[in-house]
Amino acid sequence: MYLTQSIKRAAQIVGRQTATDDHGRRRTWIEFVDRVARLAAGLKEAGLAPGDRVAMLALNSDRYLEYFFGTVWAGAVFVPINTRLALPEFEYWLNDSGSRVLMVDDTFLSVARDLDGRMASVEHVIFVGDDPAPLGLRHYESLIDGMAPAADALRGGDDLAGLFYTGGTTGVSKGVMLSHRNLVSNALNVVPGIGFNEATRWLHSAPMFHLADGTATFGVSLGAGSHYFIAGFDPVAACQAIERHRITNSLFVPTMVNMLVNHPRLAEFDLSSLERVLYGASPMPEAVIEKAMEVLPRVEFIHAYGQTECAPAVTIMPPEYHVLDGPLAGRIKSCGRAVLSVEVRVVDDTGAEVPAGTVGEICARGPNVMLGYWNKPELTAATIRDGWIHTGDGGYMDEDGFVYVVDRVKDMIISGGENVYSAEVENAIYELAAVIECAVIGVPDERWGERVHAIVRLSDAAALTEAALFDHCRQRIAGYKCPRSVEFQTEPLPLSGAGKILKSKLREPYWAGRDRQVG
Amino acid sequence: MYLTQSIKRAAQIVGRQTATDDHGRRRTWIEFVDRVARLAAGLKEAGLAPGDRVAMLALNSDRYLEYFFGTVWAGAVFVPINTRLALPEFEYWLNDSGSRVLMVDDTFLSVARDLDGRMASVEHVIFVGDDPAPLGLRHYESLIDGMAPAADALRGGDDLAGLFYTGGTTGVSKGVMLSHRNLVSNALNVVPGIGFNEATRWLHSAPMFHLADGTATFGVSLGAGSHYFIAGFDPVAACQAIERHRITNSLFVPTMVNMLVNHPRLAEFDLSSLERVLYGASPMPEAVIEKAMEVLPRVEFIHAYGQTECAPAVTIMPPEYHVLDGPLAGRIKSCGRAVLSVEVRVVDDTGAEVPAGTVGEICARGPNVMLGYWNKPELTAATIRDGWIHTGDGGYMDEDGFVYVVDRVKDMIISGGENVYSAEVENAIYELAAVIECAVIGVPDERWGERVHAIVRLSDAAALTEAALFDHCRQRIAGYKCPRSVEFQTEPLPLSGAGKILKSKLREPYWAGRDRQVG
Repeated sequence: MYLTQSIKRAAQIVGRQTATDDHGRRRTWIEFVDRVARLAAGLKEAGLAPGDRVAMLALNSDRYLEYFFGTVWAGAVFVPINTRLALPEFEYWLNDSGSRVLMVDDTFLSVARDLDGRMASVEHVIFVGDDPAPLGLRHYESLIDGMAPAADALRGGDDLAGLFYTGGTTGVSKGVMLSHRNLVSNALNVVPGIGFNEATRWLHSAPMFHLADGTATFGVSLGAGSHYFIAGFDPVAACQAIERHRITNSLFVPTMVNMLVNHPRLAEFDLSSLERVLYGASPMPEAVIEKAMEVLPRVEFIHAYGQTECAPAVTIMPPEYHVLDGPLAGRIKSCGRAVLSVEVRVVDDTGAEVPAGTVGEICARGPNVMLGYWNKPELTAATIRDGWIHTGDGGYMDEDGFVYVVDRVKDMIISGGENVYSAEVENAIYELAAVIECAVIGVPDERWGERVHAIVRLSDAAALTEAALFDHCRQRIAGYKCPRSVEFQTEPLPLSGAGKILKSKLREPYWAGRDRQVG
Repeated sequence: MYLTQSIKRAAQIVGRQTATDDHGRRRTWIEFVDRVARLAAGLKEAGLAPGDRVAMLALNSDRYLEYFFGTVWAGAVFVPINTRLALPEFEYWLNDSGSRVLMVDDTFLSVARDLDGRMASVEHVIFVGDDPAPLGLRHYESLIDGMAPAADALRGGDDLAGLFYTGGTTGVSKGVMLSHRNLVSNALNVVPGIGFNEATRWLHSAPMFHLADGTATFGVSLGAGSHYFIAGFDPVAACQAIERHRITNSLFVPTMVNMLVNHPRLAEFDLSSLERVLYGASPMPEAVIEKAMEVLPRVEFIHAYGQTECAPAVTIMPPEYHVLDGPLAGRIKSCGRAVLSVEVRVVDDTGAEVPAGTVGEICARGPNVMLGYWNKPELTAATIRDGWIHTGDGGYMDEDGFVYVVDRVKDMIISGGENVYSAEVENAIYELAAVIECAVIGVPDERWGERVHAIVRLSDAAALTEAALFDHCRQRIAGYKCPRSVEFQTEPLPLSGAGKILKSKLREPYWAGRDRQVG
């Protein structure tokens, strides 16, 4: 199994169909493979050897897709970088990965300038923007222009394909080593469940550096569909792209779904081409998915649960269970069941499987499980035990194999000895009409150890009182789970590059100088 | 990737649904996995060690399915044996594979008796019939009864899972070594194309020892569908089973499709549950598939092309191209395009890829390609070169990646220096209404080297004359391709265990004592 097989197959079977269309810059699959093979030639001419790392710091574009495949065609390893980091984090990732090439677009030129002299391993900074390259940088297109296509390096199987850094929201940053087999088997696992095929027109709206969208980078290519791009998520840009390109599928993380379905201009756009929306990467509040189903009644929703370490899909929740009535109702809180070639189980602290309905840590085993953490053998050994990866997510499984993620184990709040799962509290708060976003965190409390604290973004500062929020929660969840304190605001909550609410940042002012015990 | 993962997942997500139903003997997926784990325990108690071979010589049944999974759960290797062999061939396969266990059903008890003393490696003969075991044999159920479930041996990846002997129709018999990864990746490749899922009700009507049906053995299990069985193909038994169990999918080789759609009692049965019919394993005459589409208008037909060495699927031809009119028409002669993770190309004698439209040898590369031939490293090296398996099939690819198999390279007739592909001649002959079956072979000819010879089974001996057949062919195919001689008969042509017309047997009387040069 190797990643470039998918694009060669696409060129063979739908060679004249659209591979990429970035704001009208259209390339067929035959052209795409040709550019990938020439990009690989350019990288090799620049001195890249098999196994070398090539980093990318850019917004979404057709070149981002070429970069993934061109890098592995050359036998090298891609390192797609989270765009929302702070400078020291960029520096750490580039140096930790030992990347020899860094590609940057217009947006991140200034970051590259700021990092000048601090990237020990980087020998080439390549400019992937549309304008001419700034003085001193080589332009991405010059790697391709005039090159003869390189032979495919044919790395595959357990060979390292990419390093994906995670941990922005949870502390220690680490490079997840994914092999060709990890990424291809994930694509094979999701193709039937998501339905990628030649007729798929996928909008890359979530960031391409993150594996939630990466499922489509490799899955849509395996299905020989077509890729469309917006630089970054914005509800209006997404709607315009869907209308213009007759997009059939896309992935939105829950915060994006929330922004989309609540957008005042939503009704202005023709979204009738949209067949399926994939969501995942963080828990979906029930009120948000119900609103989405109401606003987009013809769209099929699919929930995928996973993590970068699993390349990423672990479970999938098909459209037929996204119903509020009928015999299949009642599963909407679930993130679905194991994808095709993956085993899932829930275990207790000792690693023993727990009975159905009991909360524990979700574990997975399969060909999608990462090779390990880059240069972190001890952390790898602690995370993958007896072939089972411990996801760090708390959840339970029902008697029909449906998995319910209750929270990141690390996000669990322990208040007065009781475990409180943030997602459950957030679900309750999201039911209130005035709530646009919310995050529930544990903050230090002398009496309880941790106190349940809610940060709530309102549509209008006067729309909700603390007392009304408490009353509402008390009617829905156990008293010990209700927030003891709340902050209202009207500005957006901070998001990670992947679009998750950045709880670590919200926690910071409360925990400065203290050590929080996490799962 | 390992085979038992699929059944554990099925037990987790649809544990109370039917795994197997053999004439009313129904077992849920939870029961099935329990029996498999206890069968494995029984096999281990009988002395089986990891990697040991377990042969099965039996007609289709639920136990055949248990045998596949139970053998690998014990860490052993399955050796499903073609039921149509002659005694020396049974002997050769058992001894060549070094099988330590032989399972036989009622039908093959006499064979086991005849082989007594000639099976050097076989230590246990297990009776898999429904009656009590004959004196001296152990009953299959006694391997299971009272045993505690064994732990899964968890062999997987490149570990050997099964030996499939081929060559019955083409000469030298060899054991194809298929790994867990080969069989799981094949299942992953076909799940979306064939559409195996929890609602699938599959009828095992083609022989289970052959990988054409084996695609369903592993694919339906991966999709968590349900398995139903008839002991062997018979048009009436198949129709009865479809009606009784509301079968949704099955595989029929072309000769079976032919028998089914021409059966006088077809209209008596309610076949309305049938959604998809997979066909393959030998070329499908156009007249037969057109008749099938006419007689079963609501059924979607899928053509899969492959070979045991490819575990087995190489290409798949989806239902939407099974049309005679409209924009997608004209592909019906094709066997489709590369399955998801497989590369396909057509090469000339030097191994170089030929242009679209040019006939050459079909080659494939991917995770489905066999480990090699058992104890035949030279033959393996000659067959898999630079990672590409040479299928021995002649064909071409069009500009959209559709593959057209013109014939087994070995079946090609070279007459007067011209290549004649039997399938093309057979297609022409099948257009005649009186023709039930036909086979075109090359027979020795002093003038032309080989002469095109047709053996034709008629519905009625007087239904067709030689002159009328020649006239018909001359209007459809080049003169040099037309049969120079013809034999009419009303009895069935000899079939291989896989249901293919046994051309080697038809050729025998003509070539006795001669050496036929084959591709």
